Amino acid sequence: MNIEVNKILEADVRTISRMISMIEQLDEQAFRILSTIDNHTGNAITLGITGSPGAGKSTLVNQLINEIRKLNMTVAVLAVDPSSPYSGGAILGDRIRMADQHNDESVYIRSLSSRGESGGIPMILGSMIRLLDAANFDVIMIETVGVGQTEVKIMNFADLVAVILTPESGDSIQMIKAGLMEIADLYVINKADRPGADRLIADLNATIISQHKGPAPAPRIAKTQATSGKGVPEMLQEILTYHDHMKSTGNLAERKGTQRSNETYEIINYLSLNYISEFVNNTPEFTQILDEVKTRSADPYTSSNIIMNKLKEIIEKE
Amino acid sequence: MNIEVNKILEADVRTISRMISMIEQLDEQAFRILSTIDNHTGNAITLGITGSPGAGKSTLVNQLINEIRKLNMTVAVLAVDPSSPYSGGAILGDRIRMADQHNDESVYIRSLSSRGESGGIPMILGSMIRLLDAANFDVIMIETVGVGQTEVKIMNFADLVAVILTPESGDSIQMIKAGLMEIADLYVINKADRPGADRLIADLNATIISQHKGPAPAPRIAKTQATSGKGVPEMLQEILTYHDHMKSTGNLAERKGTQRSNETYEIINYLSLNYISEFVNNTPEFTQILDEVKTRSADPYTSSNIIMNKLKEIIEKE
Repeated sequence: MNIEVNKILEADVRTISRMISMIEQLDEQAFRILSTIDNHTGNAITLGITGSPGAGKSTLVNQLINEIRKLNMTVAVLAVDPSSPYSGGAILGDRIRMADQHNDESVYIRSLSSRGESGGIPMILGSMIRLLDAANFDVIMIETVGVGQTEVKIMNFADLVAVILTPESGDSIQMIKAGLMEIADLYVINKADRPGADRLIADLNATIISQHKGPAPAPRIAKTQATSGKGVPEMLQEILTYHDHMKSTGNLAERKGTQRSNETYEIINYLSLNYISEFVNNTPEFTQILDEVKTRSADPYTSSNIIMNKLKEIIEKE
Repeated sequence: MNIEVNKILEADVRTISRMISMIEQLDEQAFRILSTIDNHTGNAITLGITGSPGAGKSTLVNQLINEIRKLNMTVAVLAVDPSSPYSGGAILGDRIRMADQHNDESVYIRSLSSRGESGGIPMILGSMIRLLDAANFDVIMIETVGVGQTEVKIMNFADLVAVILTPESGDSIQMIKAGLMEIADLYVINKADRPGADRLIADLNATIISQHKGPAPAPRIAKTQATSGKGVPEMLQEILTYHDHMKSTGNLAERKGTQRSNETYEIINYLSLNYISEFVNNTPEFTQILDEVKTRSADPYTSSNIIMNKLKEIIEKE
């Protein structure tokens, strides 16, 4: 497969899709190409959208796409939510409908399953964002279901994180538990016509927002009704204003820098886990210990410590 | 904090709870204790219960507890589902109600958030299962929401995995995407009174079950209505029969062995990730490269490869 770098920079859909697949398959060529186009990155607004299943994330994303297009900006969506209606299989119908609706080259939508045991999802996603950034998309949205460690890591690649909450759902507790509340820049109260919306806003103001510290601006709150689209233009405005503000204070440059080092760490983590498991499997002394664990003549705790200490010894012999 | 090993083996609730917290905090003493009680493990039936939010997992787990108690067996539940009603915060009410209902020493329930960026959840959970196993619980249930890589890894610690599906929900597609369908030993069709249940069973039979290969027995199907408890005794019977069958064929011993090596790998992964990130951060040559990535004078891909190659060089200098 030959990828033309120019086609990436021109946002050619077929080239982008092929690159995304190559990144998913951890194709080395893709990473070499990413390294050459790195100097074209850093301009996109990267927006993380997270919230429980049922909070209305996908509907909201769909409405946001419309609003972003009205401003003549281009937009890409990466959905890492297995329950997302964009995701494959029998629910493909929705995806096609959605693609039809935005039937132009200015909207790119891709869903990714978080399947697989590689532990490489954050790395893979970081690379995809960088690709779409180089392809000059104005806004890149990353949609995840708000649970789990992987999601929190993914949100480290966003300039801005919007957490979608609904009144009376207990969502906020789940988000707090998942560690996502702390990283929110914007709270979106969706289904804001339901009872409890004002209470939720008052709670957020009294707790998180009034206690805000740190260099970034205090988180903002937006109210939406995704199904009708009500409040979505204002939500987008909040996002753009917040982003501009971050830009003017230098906070954005700082975040973009951190995203770059986070991404580097994720690649190192991924490569080193693979390397160490290979190293362990190819060292007869270690595989023997693992066999002893299996047959119960050694325990997992002592054995993993023995292996790690030997590994460290080797590393530090330097 | 002084932990008496005897109290663990006697399943003293306060000691177990304290040990669980220590494991959560990665307290080294806990892991030393686990290593000494390893010879008391290997007897519990470990059962993974997974399914989408809304599939009725918690209700089903609750009913299963009742049925297990009727057989005079003891049972522990570890819930790693942030949307689980056992989980803390404002929804604590349910948890108390549930604990009340099983107000004896024969039922132990603990919920764990998957919060945190440590990447250590599978390791932590493996250790908790081993603890409860040493404490002589007959059945240990691990409940997770069926999405994400962490969940699949956690299921590697179960003798038997039950995937909860509901008719007409599209759940099955999500489960396939998450890679959970392949590891199921038992499909539980919950809300089996709803239309589509028979169709779902026919689909499962036509695809996964008829194509089953390998040393383990073919997956089984159970129908339940968790809210009324209908079908739950039969579900438990399926589980126990399946487990007995695995035992008699030697397949169980094989799985328990694999669980032990999986757990060892998870500990090694965790320790090595921590060690390598520390090593990178304490090596001026590496932190300089990371700074260059941050300030855009180097790219993440080339840089992580440089760092990894140097790490490998150091390791292989041996």
